This record gives sequence, structure tokens and C-alpha cells, in this order.
Amino acid sequence: MSDFLRPSGRVANALREIQFTRQFTKHAEGSVLVEFGDTKVICTASIEEKVPGFLKGKGQGWLTAEYGMLPRSTHTRMDREAAKGKQSGRTQEIQRLIGRSLRAAFDLENFGERTLHLDCDVIQADGGTRTAAISGAMVAAYDAFTKLHAQGSIAAIPVKHFLAAISVGVFNGTPVLDLDYAEDSNCDTDMNVVMDENCHFIEVQGTAEGIAFDRQALNQLLDLAQAGIQQIIVKQKQALSIS
Amino acid sequence: MSDFLRPSGRVANALREIQFTRQFTKHAEGSVLVEFGDTKVICTASIEEKVPGFLKGKGQGWLTAEYGMLPRSTHTRMDREAAKGKQSGRTQEIQRLIGRSLRAAFDLENFGERTLHLDCDVIQADGGTRTAAISGAMVAAYDAFTKLHAQGSIAAIPVKHFLAAISVGVFNGTPVLDLDYAEDSNCDTDMNVVMDENCHFIEVQGTAEGIAFDRQALNQLLDLAQAGIQQIIVKQKQALSIS
Amino acid sequence: MSDFLRPSGRVANALREIQFTRQFTKHAEGSVLVEFGDTKVICTASIEEKVPGFLKGKGQGWLTAEYGMLPRSTHTRMDREAAKGKQSGRTQEIQRLIGRSLRAAFDLENFGERTLHLDCDVIQADGGTRTAAISGAMVAAYDAFTKLHAQGSIAAIPVKHFLAAISVGVFNGTPVLDLDYAEDSNCDTDMNVVMDENCHFIEVQGTAEGIAFDRQALNQLLDLAQAGIQQIIVKQKQALSIS
Amino acid sequence: MSDFLRPSGRVANALREIQFTRQFTKHAEGSVLVEFGDTKVICTASIEEKVPGFLKGKGQGWLTAEYGMLPRSTHTRMDREAAKGKQSGRTQEIQRLIGRSLRAAFDLENFGERTLHLDCDVIQADGGTRTAAISGAMVAAYDAFTKLHAQGSIAAIPVKHFLAAISVGVFNGTPVLDLDYAEDSNCDTDMNVVMDENCHFIEVQGTAEGIAFDRQALNQLLDLAQAGIQQIIVKQKQALSIS
Amino acid sequence: MSDFLRPSGRVANALREIQFTRQFTKHAEGSVLVEFGDTKVICTASIEEKVPGFLKGKGQGWLTAEYGMLPRSTHTRMDREAAKGKQSGRTQEIQRLIGRSLRAAFDLENFGERTLHLDCDVIQADGGTRTAAISGAMVAAYDAFTKLHAQGSIAAIPVKHFLAAISVGVFNGTPVLDLDYAEDSNCDTDMNVVMDENCHFIEVQGTAEGIAFDRQALNQLLDLAQAGIQQIIVKQKQALSIS
Amino acid sequence: MSDFLRPSGRVANALREIQFTRQFTKHAEGSVLVEFGDTKVICTASIEEKVPGFLKGKGQGWLTAEYGMLPRSTHTRMDREAAKGKQSGRTQEIQRLIGRSLRAAFDLENFGERTLHLDCDVIQADGGTRTAAISGAMVAAYDAFTKLHAQGSIAAIPVKHFLAAISVGVFNGTPVLDLDYAEDSNCDTDMNVVMDENCHFIEVQGTAEGIAFDRQALNQLLDLAQAGIQQIIVKQKQALSIS
Repeated sequence: MSDFLRPSGRVANALREIQFTRQFTKHAEGSVLVEFGDTKVICTASIEEKVPGFLKGKGQGWLTAEYGMLPRSTHTRMDREAAKGKQSGRTQEIQRLIGRSLRAAFDLENFGERTLHLDCDVIQADGGTRTAAISGAMVAAYDAFTKLHAQGSIAAIPVKHFLAAISVGVFNGTPVLDLDYAEDSNCDTDMNVVMDENCHFIEVQGTAEGIAFDRQALNQLLDLAQAGIQQIIVKQKQALSIS
Repeated sequence: MSDFLRPSGRVANALREIQFTRQFTKHAEGSVLVEFGDTKVICTASIEEKVPGFLKGKGQGWLTAEYGMLPRSTHTRMDREAAKGKQSGRTQEIQRLIGRSLRAAFDLENFGERTLHLDCDVIQADGGTRTAAISGAMVAAYDAFTKLHAQGSIAAIPVKHFLAAISVGVFNGTPVLDLDYAEDSNCDTDMNVVMDENCHFIEVQGTAEGIAFDRQALNQLLDLAQAGIQQIIVKQKQALSIS
Repeated sequence: MSDFLRPSGRVANALREIQFTRQFTKHAEGSVLVEFGDTKVICTASIEEKVPGFLKGKGQGWLTAEYGMLPRSTHTRMDREAAKGKQSGRTQEIQRLIGRSLRAAFDLENFGERTLHLDCDVIQADGGTRTAAISGAMVAAYDAFTKLHAQGSIAAIPVKHFLAAISVGVFNGTPVLDLDYAEDSNCDTDMNVVMDENCHFIEVQGTAEGIAFDRQALNQLLDLAQAGIQQIIVKQKQALSIS
Repeated sequence: MSDFLRPSGRVANALREIQFTRQFTKHAEGSVLVEFGDTKVICTASIEEKVPGFLKGKGQGWLTAEYGMLPRSTHTRMDREAAKGKQSGRTQEIQRLIGRSLRAAFDLENFGERTLHLDCDVIQADGGTRTAAISGAMVAAYDAFTKLHAQGSIAAIPVKHFLAAISVGVFNGTPVLDLDYAEDSNCDTDMNVVMDENCHFIEVQGTAEGIAFDRQALNQLLDLAQAGIQQIIVKQKQALSIS
Repeated sequence: MSDFLRPSGRVANALREIQFTRQFTKHAEGSVLVEFGDTKVICTASIEEKVPGFLKGKGQGWLTAEYGMLPRSTHTRMDREAAKGKQSGRTQEIQRLIGRSLRAAFDLENFGERTLHLDCDVIQADGGTRTAAISGAMVAAYDAFTKLHAQGSIAAIPVKHFLAAISVGVFNGTPVLDLDYAEDSNCDTDMNVVMDENCHFIEVQGTAEGIAFDRQALNQLLDLAQAGIQQIIVKQKQALSIS
Repeated sequence: MSDFLRPSGRVANALREIQFTRQFTKHAEGSVLVEFGDTKVICTASIEEKVPGFLKGKGQGWLTAEYGMLPRSTHTRMDREAAKGKQSGRTQEIQRLIGRSLRAAFDLENFGERTLHLDCDVIQADGGTRTAAISGAMVAAYDAFTKLHAQGSIAAIPVKHFLAAISVGVFNGTPVLDLDYAEDSNCDTDMNVVMDENCHFIEVQGTAEGIAFDRQALNQLLDLAQAGIQQIIVKQKQALSIS
């Protein structure tokens, strides 16, 4: 791996610089700016004192997520989804993934008849927006639950386990961690992994963009992802001052 | 695994009965009824003599897929998406998956400026509709290309490799192959795998519905999927009378 | 009429081969594949235990219908209405016709606060899809009511009278029964008739496509339709084993 | 028929007072306020110097119609379709009927690559809005063609034959002509007939609202309609000062 | 100002001929045709015996407005908003303005839990449709309240003050009152003013179309508007026979 | 004015702290974070090398604006417009205002056949988002033109005059400058003013929320607005290092 060169100069198993800025905006119960290098996503967590119809009267809570990109968060301006009148399939796919993942992190049975809305809005994109969003939403949600707990609204923060997400892929024949846009747009295989602090999988989504990948490549990618995710979880806890 | 009981009575690594009925309807260039047990999907392949705007003048072809369910293909009637005025996030996610998968099976550079439309419509659902759809669409697309080749419109059938898809999951603690609805609605982990005839992966999509899964479970599921998919590819070729 | 030739070789007053296959799919309370020659429509009848808002608390039931065509049920692929985000005017016109017709066949006052949803989905089109749909929906609805009756949910099957539908038209100057696509796309007058077993009209919809038609032609067309419909009603009852 | 009483006091075969006011608004090439008693519809005919895509380069013209009701044209205010974001099935059915009917009145082959847009907007409704709209649109379209002819844009007014429309129905057991709202909302059978000046049918649309109708009733209704339509055509020609 | 010539020949501070025709259509509680020269708008006021969700149980009423233009009310036919499936930004802006303005004219606290719907539909446009609509809606609303009062449903007509609206602008360098289309489409500044009978402002909306305007021009325009509006209010009261 | 207290403690004619942060995100040709106290809006300016259809071939450019709010930019979470499938009337009104204003600042005739897209996205709202957006968009647009000029694509920066916007209103009976949310939600009159560096008006939009306002109040508000806007323009130029 010595003379392999990624566009960013990173070695194959290096994450970009990752930062979580809490209380980024003032109204939301949880508000985090997450940065994976030049990818920047605002993740807010909002508490609503009611649940969707299908859960009414069941005594449990709900968590749901939405995702968006500012029109010029990208290299070329994209059409604004609100103006087009619909969210793209990609947007819906990503927000479904964020919601499923975060529902696995928290115990919604002990949350009361409340809904936690996670909004992940990309203000600058450079690859890996969905994994940054999941990782940042974890912190924003934790902050919102902490606020509810401090108010005495819930007995404990209903976290089951911390989780984070990262992308991995095969770039120029080499498995690499945390793809940026230059790599993402030229890689053969792209995989997003969501994993908890016990190294258990929540989601694995791998796609052969060009050349199909074999079992050995899959295993190398999962190894990279596992190591990267555990580093991100350390940073999440540092940001939250959790030992 | 001796005394483990699946609702269907199948052993853990058994597929349901799988059938491909070609020329199921008469207008489409390729038309296949695919059955995975009680799951039945009509897959049609239609040739259109033009490409989308972003490919115009590039001399290559395109392949795209759409997916739908008849309102009463399911246990309880679902709202008709055409009447609601939009496709659900689930529908869009599935049709994007079908399209990506099948684009990996064929070489669209040698297809001319044509679009192959794959329509996968579920007439009866019993779990695994997306994997049945991908497996059936492979046969329908092959038939459509064969017809074009017979007409002299293309020099060869532009197949790169056969592929098929199957679901696997952890049901009552045991990894099983080809989940039906009774299993699908009660399993802890659900994974859809698309793989080619060389045992290379096209797509891996695993989700922890309840309990997160570890690397060992992942490996067991992938073993099951690989064996199942190779059996399905044999059936696809038999249906097409390809040795 | 001796040397007049229809594209199908049929004589002017001949129906195509008509078949009703009950229990075509397994989930719906009534499920019928109706075939008028090469026109094939899946008609399902689904019971829902509530009524629309405007009927709430009135103690009576409701019946409504929806219609769709699979994108490649036709010679040339049509856009999928769910993907376009709206049903065409033609689709809405047909599903309103099916609903009005079937509401005339059953006594919804003795049905309880339930809704019967009829879904008519064309899987192969060769002319006359709306008349096939109405004729098939009659059988599917009867099956659903029979199931409710067998469960003791209703005191009797609330049928007022059987009804069926057929198209008639003037093809090459001659009135003919049950137009197939080759005739439908080239005829001067096209009329759809819905009639009950007592030879009373439920709906008459005639359109001059090219040359306006006079009273005599109208009368000939209605004679043909009446004879055809009574034959179809016989087949409906045979399929249902009603003497 | 002597002691039969219609709500309006009319005898069974009497039309309401019918008026055509030309040049009702100033911008349109043809602009007619048509009144059938208290039913009032503004019909405008607008010429556009292009045809829809499917007719481009074929050297012929097109005619299309749209229909709407002001929200408070009716007894109870209806939702505004523009605000709801879609036209109802009824609206689409009516505008399709108006378009089909008027395309039968004119020879669009000699119209040049132009589109005639007919807009029929109901400002006050009292039954029979679609038949008033068709009858008024005939006059508006004629005016627009006359203007084009006067400008030398077309060699002759491309009228094939005049046509008009009327509703008939069975009210309290008696066939009556030109139903107003009080009758329309209580009748057993409702039929709309479009007919040309030669007593040939363009459209016949009959619906049994309650009790199915037999052949004899159908014939009585058609007799009433024919007599009424010929009277309306006389009034159209008087309004246009055509002998 | 002596030799300045407006296209209409009017002097700078002259209104067009303004008329309010009450009871223009028969179903609405208030129905007014308002004419500002060739601009003609039907304004109806409809009472609904309920309020929107956000006001339920608060004991007060609501007033809301909608605006539309018939497709051929204008020089060139516009697309029908109901057919396009959405209202333009301009339409929404205007109907929000009408609603806000009229809510300022009436005391909705003494109106009961009712909604007054104002529908302003332009049948002929020649500039100033929004100001005509506001001025006409005032009369229609007053009529509707009068009817409710006569029925004993409300203790008094809840009018706070009469109001009207007019447009002013700078045309060829000169401030003028009540722009018609010929002026409106060529002016540098366009301002709409809504004012009550005490010369207090409800709304001021000024836009520099070409050249920005200074404070002096603003003052001249507001002087013109004030004088014009007071004349319109006199006409409103005459139409309503209020001294 | 000595003992009047605004919620923020500001005196009546004091602006909030105003900042323009350029190059806030990296992809857009111009990217500015504008802050009016706690109101924060990201304004990006994107160049597209084409114009809308109505300008094609005319040799001139176009400028258009879109506006949005992140769902939790506000005290209570709002629904996401992209998920609802349409932009609210308020959103459309604001983005039309931004576009009209900025088109007055630049000479689009010397811009080439290009479109400048301004996207104003509120990430934190505390009153005055539309005026902050206009003021920030001015800087972002200037930056984008500067970049084009530096590339040699345009001969000069096509600015006609700088402009900015501010809100003024009557709060507790006193005219005040630059309303924050606490004032905005409780004021009697709300006015937004867009003005250029020569003290000429581009837009004046005043609304009486509760009590109608007289000419004297209007004049006081305009005096406040003028002084505030000139201060903002100074800050814009400082941010751009323009003397």
C-alpha cells in the first residue's frame, strides 16, 4: 500500500478530519454541524409531543428523519426539490436509511408518545453526506434526549448503543476508507456501513458501480469500515463529553 | 439445524419453488412471469428507439426499471400509487435497485441508442418481491435482446454475465434462505443479495430490523445467498434453453 | 353479411372467447382473471370495514372502483401513471364508469358500513378493456359478497341483478359485436353498453369517431349489444355455478 | 302528459329559455355567454398558431377544450380545482366530451397548423352545464373561424355541420327534456345527447341513476333530445345571422 | 400636466369608469361584478358554517380569499391553473393580499365560528385586477354579512371600516391613477394601495419596474391613490345604498 | 424615545449586529453567510451558461432567486416543503421579491446569455429573513460577477447600484428599525423596504397587521428604513473591500 496515492494524499485507512459542533443553531433541542472533511451537514433533532397515527395510544415514541441538500451544496447547482414539487428517489432512499439506523440506536418504548424529528441538511457536499448525516444525527438526537431528561420528561436517556456510519470503496483497485467526492465519482465499488459500538452491523449497503466485487474485497472493506466507525464513535463521545 | 421449523416447513437453506414462464403476455419484447413460491411478478422488457437526454448522441444505450404492486397483491389492500399521485419511497428504492442491478448485467455500449424499459409488476406478494423481480427481469431482458439480435439490430446479445437475487435473514436466531412473508415480517435481520454467475457481488443490502448482527452472522447469510443465487441462475438458463 | 370479413374472421354478431378464472390471486376476497380473447384483466374485490366520510353513520355501504393498465399491456409501452404522478382523463373516466355500473348491480343498503373496492388491472390489452373489466368485476364482487355471507357478516348476497358490458361499433360500414383492437382503432362508431339480465340499460356510451351515426345504426348496435351481454351473463353464472 | 308537473312548470318537451350572447368578452377570437335558463357558461375560442407535438409537420390543425366551474357557481361552494392542484374526474370527463364533440363539427384538415382552444367556464350552474357548454362552444368556435377567414388566414370556414347538445331524463317516471338542477338531482335516468343538424348522433351518454331503463324509455328520450337539439341549432344560427 | 397624454385620454388623476353590479349570480350570499373600465371581476362571498382547524373552539370567525383568471381573460390565452396542477406565485400573492386586506375591514370576533370565502375571478383583464378584486370583494362581503344579519345569525354587520384599493404608477415620467393594461405594461413604477375610509393604509406595495423612484414620487403616488380610493368608497356605499 | 424599551434593549433606530461572511461554502461562485443578529441566511450565487426559454437568442442574461427555510430554523419545526411537495405562498412571495429586487441592481443586458441563480436558505430565523436574504444576495451576486470578470467572461461587473433591505414597523406604538422575532410577532404594522445607495426605492411593502397606519407613521417608518439601509450598504462594501 506504500506507493498508492489517493487524490487527497490520505493513506487507505485514513478518515478525513471529523468534527461535531454542538448547539450550531439555537432553536432545535439538538443541533449539530458535522464535518467529514469538506462535507458539512447540519443535523437538528426536534421533539414533537405527538406520534403518527399508527402509534396513537400505544404508549411508545417514534423517530423519523428527513434529508436535503442546499441547491448549491454541490459542484454544479441542483434543482431545489421544494420547487420541483418532489423529493428524488435518492433523497428518499437516504432519509429512510437515516431513520432506520437511528431507530436502532434508541429505545423508543421508553420515550413517551413523542416523535423525534431528525433533519439532516447538507450545506456543502464532498462525498459521504449520508454517513456524515447518520453520525451527526446520533449526536443531535443524544442532545435532544439529554434536554428532555434534564427537564424530567423522561427517566433516562433511552440510548441502546452508540452508532456511526462510514463509506468504503474500491478506488483504483485498492480498498479505501471514507471516500471523498473525487474518489466516490471514480470508484468501482461503493459501500455504506452503519455499525454500533459493539461492532455489530445495523446496515450494510454495497453496490458494484463498475466491476462486481468478490468476497475477499467485501471482507477488506468491512474491516476498514469497522475500524473507521469505532474512531468516529470515540469522537462522538468526546464531543458529548461522555467517557 | 435438525429440529428448527420454518413456517413453510422448509429447511434453512431451501429455496421456494421457482419458475420462469416466458412469453406471459404478447406485446412486450420480453415478458416473464416469475414465481418464487406464492410471490408472482410480471416482468416485461420493452425496447424504445431512443435514449434519455443525458445520453443523446453518445452512441450508447440505456436500461431503466420501474416497479409496482397491484393494490390487492398484498394481505391488506394498499392504496393505488397512481391514484395517490406519487410512488412511495419503498417503490422508488426498489426500482432504483432493479435498474442498477440489471445495468450491471448487460453491456449497454453495444446496444445502440436504445432504451430497455423493465417493468416489474407484482400481482401476488408473499415476501421477496424485489429479488423475484430482479431474477425475472434478467430473463425478460435476455429475451428482448435475443429478439433484437434475431432482427439483425444488434450484432450480439450484450450480456456480460447472468445474475440473480435472493433474500436471506435471521429468523428465530437461525440464518435462512429466501424468506417468505411469514418469516420476513418476523425476522431480526433482512438482507438482499444480487450476485452474478461468477459469485461476484452486484449489491448487498443488509438491515438489522431488531437485533444488530455480527460478522459471523453476515458470513453465514452470504454463504446461503451465494448457494441460492447459483441455483436460480441455473433455472434462468434452463428457462432460456441456454446450456 | 355473407362476405364481410372482420380481421379476426369472426362473424358480425360473434363474441370473442370469454373466460372467467376465479381465485386467480390468493389474498383478495374476490379475484377473477377475465379474458375477452386476448384482452386480459385481473379484477379483485376487497372488503374494507369502513365507509367514506360522506356516508359515516348512515348504516349503509359503498362500492368504488379503480382501473389501471400495466405499462406494457399495450402494443407500445405507455408511461406508468404512478411515475407520472397522475391518472389520465381516460383512466378516471373508465374507473368512474366501472364504479357507477357495479353500484347499480348491488343493494348497498344491506351491506353494512363497509366499502367494496374493485381493482381492475389490465395485464394484456386487445380492445374492450373497460367492458371486460365491468364483466369481470361483477364476478369478483359476487365472490366477495359470498365470502362475507358465509362468514355470517351479511344476511344475504345483496345482488339486485347480474349485469355485463360489451362494446359494439360500426366497422367498415357494418355493425359488429365485441371489437378487438384491430377493429377498435379503425371504426367509425364505438359504443359501450352496460345492461342487466332483464335487458335494462345501466349505461349507454356511444361516440362517433369519424362519421356521425343515425338512429337506425344505433338500433342495430343496441340489438347486437343486448344479445352479446345476455351470453356473457350466462357465462358469469356458469363460472359462479349459479343456475 | 296533461297533469304532469315539472318543478319549473315546463311541459315535458319544453326547453328552458336559451340565449347566445356573442362578443361577451373582448380579447378572445370567439366569446359567447350561453344561457340555458339559469345555467350560464362563458365559452371562449382562442386561436394558437401551433399544434401539439403529435401533429407537428402534418399540415393539419387541432381543437381542444377545457371546462371549469367558478367555486360558487353552485348551490354550495366547491373547492377551487386550481387550489386543490388537480381537476376532478368529472371535469376531465366533461372537457374530453366537449373536445370530441367539437372536433366532429369542424374539418381540421383545412385549418392549417393551428390549435383552437375552447374554454368553457360555468359562472352559474342550474343543471345541464355540459350541454350548454357544447352548444355555446359551437358558436364561439364559428366566430373564431369567421375572424380567421376574414383575415384571409383560411380559405373557408371549415364547418362540417352544426351541432348542439341537450340533456334528457326520466323524472318521476316521465321522460323530460333539458333537465334543470331540481330535476337532475332527482331523476332516475340521465342522458346527454350531442347531435348534428342532420339528426345524426355524435355522442349518446345515458346513465341509470336509480332504476335501469328499457329500450322504450331510451327511444322516448332520444325523440325528445332530437327535437330539442334541432331547436337549439336554429337559435345558434340566428345568433350568428346564418340563414 | 396639460398636454400629457395617457393612452386612454384620461387625465392623470382620473379613475376609469367604476361599477359594482350586485346579485350578479344567484347562489352566493354576496355576488358582485366589479368593473374598472374593461377590467371585470366576479367577486362572490360564501358563508361556511365552520372555521379552519387552527381556530376551532375559539369562538371567532375567519375570512379567506382565492383569486383566478379565466384562461382567455387576457390578450393572449394563459394556461389554466387547474389543468397545470398549481397556482402561480402571482396568483398566490394576490389572493393572500385580498385576504389580508379584507380581514382588516371586518371584525371577525363577532362573526361566530364561520368562514367567509371570497372568490375573485377575472373574466376580462385590462390592468388593475387585484385592486378591482379587493374593491369588489368589500361589497360582496358586506352583502353576505347583511344576509346573515337579516337571518338573525349575527347581531350586527361586523364592519370596522370600508376600504378599497387602487393602482398608481409613473407612466412616461408622470404619476397617474388607476393604470390600465396599456400603461401597466409600460410604466416605471407600479404601486398598489389599499386604504380605508379614514385615509389609513392597510397595504402599500410599490415596485420599481425600471427606474427606482424617490421619496417625492412616492408622495405624489400616495396622494393620487388616496383621492382615488375615497371616490371608490363613495361608489361602494352608493351601490349598497348606504348613506 | 428615552424610556421606550424594545425586547432586545435596542433603541428605536438601531440595527442588530450585521455581518457578511464571504466564501462561506466552497462550490458556489458567490457564497455569503449573512447575519442580522440571530437571523442567519446562506446566500449563494450560481452561474449557469444558459437562459430561460423566453430569453433565448436575445443576447441578454437573467437573474432569478429561490428561498427556503431549514425545517428547524424556527422556534417550532415547520414541515419540509420538499416533502410536502409544494412551496408555500409565503415562500413564493419572498423569492419573487428577492428576484425582482436583485434584477434592479444589475444590468443583465451586459451579462451574456447566462442565468445567475440566487439561493437564500435560512438556517436560523429571528425575524427579517427576507431583508437579510436580499442584503446578503447582493454581496453573493457581486462576488459571482467579480469571478466572471476575473475570468474575462464579462467586460465589467454589471452593477447599476448597490441596494439593501430592512424591515421597519410600529411596535407598542413606536416606529422601530429592524424588527426581530419578538417584535415582528407583536407589531401593528410591518414594512419591508428595498432601497439603493442613492436613496431611491426598489420596493416598499407595508402591511397593517392590526391597526391601520396613517401617512405620518408611514413617513417615520420610511425615514428609519432609509437610514438603516444606508448603514447596511456601507457594511456590504466593507465586506467586499470596495471603497
